[in-house]
Amino acid sequence: MKPEGDRAIGVALLGCGTVGREVLRLLTEQAGELEARVGAPVRLAGIAVRRPHRHPDVPQELLTTEASELVARDDVDVVVEVIGGIEPARSLLLRALRAGRGVVTANKALLAEQGADLFAAADASSADLYFEAAVAGAIPLLRPLRESLAGDRISRVTGIVNGTTNFILSAMDSSGAGYAETLDEASRLGYAEADPSADVDGYDAASKAAILASLAFHTRVTSADVHREGITEVNSADVVAARELGRTVKLLAICERIREPDGAGGVAESVSARVYPAMIPLSHPLASVGGAYNAVFVEADAAGALMFYGQGAGGAPTASAVLGDLVAVARNRVAGGHGPRESAYADLPLRTMGETPTSYHVSLDVADRPGVLAQVAQVFAEHGVSISVVRQTARDSEDAPGDAILVIVTHVAPDAALRSTVDKLAGLDAVREVLSVMRVEGEVS
Amino acid sequence: MKPEGDRAIGVALLGCGTVGREVLRLLTEQAGELEARVGAPVRLAGIAVRRPHRHPDVPQELLTTEASELVARDDVDVVVEVIGGIEPARSLLLRALRAGRGVVTANKALLAEQGADLFAAADASSADLYFEAAVAGAIPLLRPLRESLAGDRISRVTGIVNGTTNFILSAMDSSGAGYAETLDEASRLGYAEADPSADVDGYDAASKAAILASLAFHTRVTSADVHREGITEVNSADVVAARELGRTVKLLAICERIREPDGAGGVAESVSARVYPAMIPLSHPLASVGGAYNAVFVEADAAGALMFYGQGAGGAPTASAVLGDLVAVARNRVAGGHGPRESAYADLPLRTMGETPTSYHVSLDVADRPGVLAQVAQVFAEHGVSISVVRQTARDSEDAPGDAILVIVTHVAPDAALRSTVDKLAGLDAVREVLSVMRVEGEVS
Repeated sequence: MKPEGDRAIGVALLGCGTVGREVLRLLTEQAGELEARVGAPVRLAGIAVRRPHRHPDVPQELLTTEASELVARDDVDVVVEVIGGIEPARSLLLRALRAGRGVVTANKALLAEQGADLFAAADASSADLYFEAAVAGAIPLLRPLRESLAGDRISRVTGIVNGTTNFILSAMDSSGAGYAETLDEASRLGYAEADPSADVDGYDAASKAAILASLAFHTRVTSADVHREGITEVNSADVVAARELGRTVKLLAICERIREPDGAGGVAESVSARVYPAMIPLSHPLASVGGAYNAVFVEADAAGALMFYGQGAGGAPTASAVLGDLVAVARNRVAGGHGPRESAYADLPLRTMGETPTSYHVSLDVADRPGVLAQVAQVFAEHGVSISVVRQTARDSEDAPGDAILVIVTHVAPDAALRSTVDKLAGLDAVREVLSVMRVEGEVS
Repeated sequence: MKPEGDRAIGVALLGCGTVGREVLRLLTEQAGELEARVGAPVRLAGIAVRRPHRHPDVPQELLTTEASELVARDDVDVVVEVIGGIEPARSLLLRALRAGRGVVTANKALLAEQGADLFAAADASSADLYFEAAVAGAIPLLRPLRESLAGDRISRVTGIVNGTTNFILSAMDSSGAGYAETLDEASRLGYAEADPSADVDGYDAASKAAILASLAFHTRVTSADVHREGITEVNSADVVAARELGRTVKLLAICERIREPDGAGGVAESVSARVYPAMIPLSHPLASVGGAYNAVFVEADAAGALMFYGQGAGGAPTASAVLGDLVAVARNRVAGGHGPRESAYADLPLRTMGETPTSYHVSLDVADRPGVLAQVAQVFAEHGVSISVVRQTARDSEDAPGDAILVIVTHVAPDAALRSTVDKLAGLDAVREVLSVMRVEGEVS
């Protein structure tokens, strides 16, 4: 639907929290620039909130509690959703799309869980559905993935996409403190929510991994398809062990295209999407991404390695991404067209975590006597896991006389084989304690 | 012009050198994926080269020496130009655009010098003109700047956009060797051309700065508007001085929106575009960009700091960017529309280098006697330049008895005032030698 003549582009804003207020501010302060960039004035038609009395600073005539009416109003061209959560956001956006309205949303959980319904509704009415703000806040990422790299083949996307957990891991790395203590500190400083589960258990990162994998591999991936481990089990021994190996611990969202011989002379492709803490080399571009920053490292066949870095959360950065999308959708409406559609044409099979090739770092506290290394190495061999590096050092302390620390980094093997190997090692007589087990990523293989 | 029915999108390739061959390879190898992403088959209509016998590996029936005929042929929808240089590229692209063909080009010199004509021709016939590959090779940069940040206000773009000079400066930093020696090494390794002037004198970076400034500030900036200094004067003393201050030397392309009181209660905006070697803090995200990599650091009012990192040159990375643009232009044609247009609506005035606020690092070899610092400080004061840091160390060597090294970092002042200050300092009796003068960028102010 093209607005008639010089008609303004009408915008409905759903939600007026931290991000919504910033969207409102930018819409107001940059009205002139937005008009120049869109080719028509951009006019706020209404703001749907639950409790209007909580928004005394907002022009009162714009406020409404009737979101469902607002999204289909005749003077609304684009609906901007910054409510978050599944309902009522889902129903409102489906209604908006069915009515032919363009939609801009920052709602990662909704896209990762129910994206298929939204994309189908957008397709059916040729409406735009843009969501740059849903992954890594202000960092332009979705547009590069789905447009700039459209002529290339992406092999891997590795992201630090959750600021809270990156803040905690960075702080553990620089202070040497443990997880619980650092989480408390993060909460005090406002970097962690009162209930930090969505962040520290990896749910937030898993939603983003689902969205990134879908775009990168043209395959529908939902958050339920993403293998997820959080950072609550990361301890200071892991962080120290990483340092000693020239590595650092990061919570990574990994989306990978796995290529293997298909047994008939061809190549079989599958997709793995997973979130877990892992050790990466200090020389890896992601290693220096500290504090609450986000960054996404992309590997493509022709482009090589790319990295995108910036603020992954916060009102203003998220609003910047929302406004960028709003300009694009508004421009498309002025031109009478729409942007590129979501595509899932490749429809690659998803890989379970057990079948996914990974490599492990294992630190063991072992008895310092001959034959122990042979015994440990035998366990790896039995599971078909080949060892890349072994380092044994005597642990000469009063607490642990006659002990040694054995550090092993494996070559790549199916995750299930590695997991079984570690279970078996823990039961060996010679192994006094498994000090640290963590996956290793980002090595040059 | 929308292709009829299921007609394929016809592509004319101009040039078949390093980038052209990679474009050809990707077009062939990824034909199925490109068709799925574009919504129509993408078919190569012809390849214009000067000497067909030099391309024995290319399907001979596609080769032609008649580029001018090829670009306007009926079966051509999109023209991909990877010849480089001003002519004949300029005439060919103007002809293609006037005939309504979409254009994808990697030609930074042409865009930076004659962009206005090309954009005008594209506008006049509603044809697409895309050029992601012209700046920083494979790094998706132009699309984020002109689309993702379209609802934000960019304040500054700071880029390492030339791989050759970054390779040389990185090598000087790690080896301690001088410029000439390191350039020789870079040539031997294939990182510098036989005639390295376009790189080491900053011409290549200046073209890219012009393109970036135009996009970031919606103002037409040509390469002639960019203040340009290369790296040929950078010596090992500069690199050592940088290290001692916790900084490193990089050749930067800087595009800045300068905001000042306009004397009437408002704010006057202007644009500065410049290329020179500068010291940046080791903690700056650009500091760790080593070797031949490129990276661009963008600061925007709402989005905050963003960085884009990747390979800035090479056949395959550049071809990846070309293909991304080709998919976008082809999609637009299938949909019967076109992408966002270039805009220069802001038309901000350009700032001369002399009027641009910068800060300097100066190292002086001075006589180690009372009163010298006062004399030096007086020169800064006379030019209205305020000093941020002074460090004086005795230089206790046989070559230079009774000498001291005085290191001064200034606050921000107009570049012309800083330049005059240094000239005056060089003439002081107490100053035996000006060891290093370099601008300082990327400080938290």
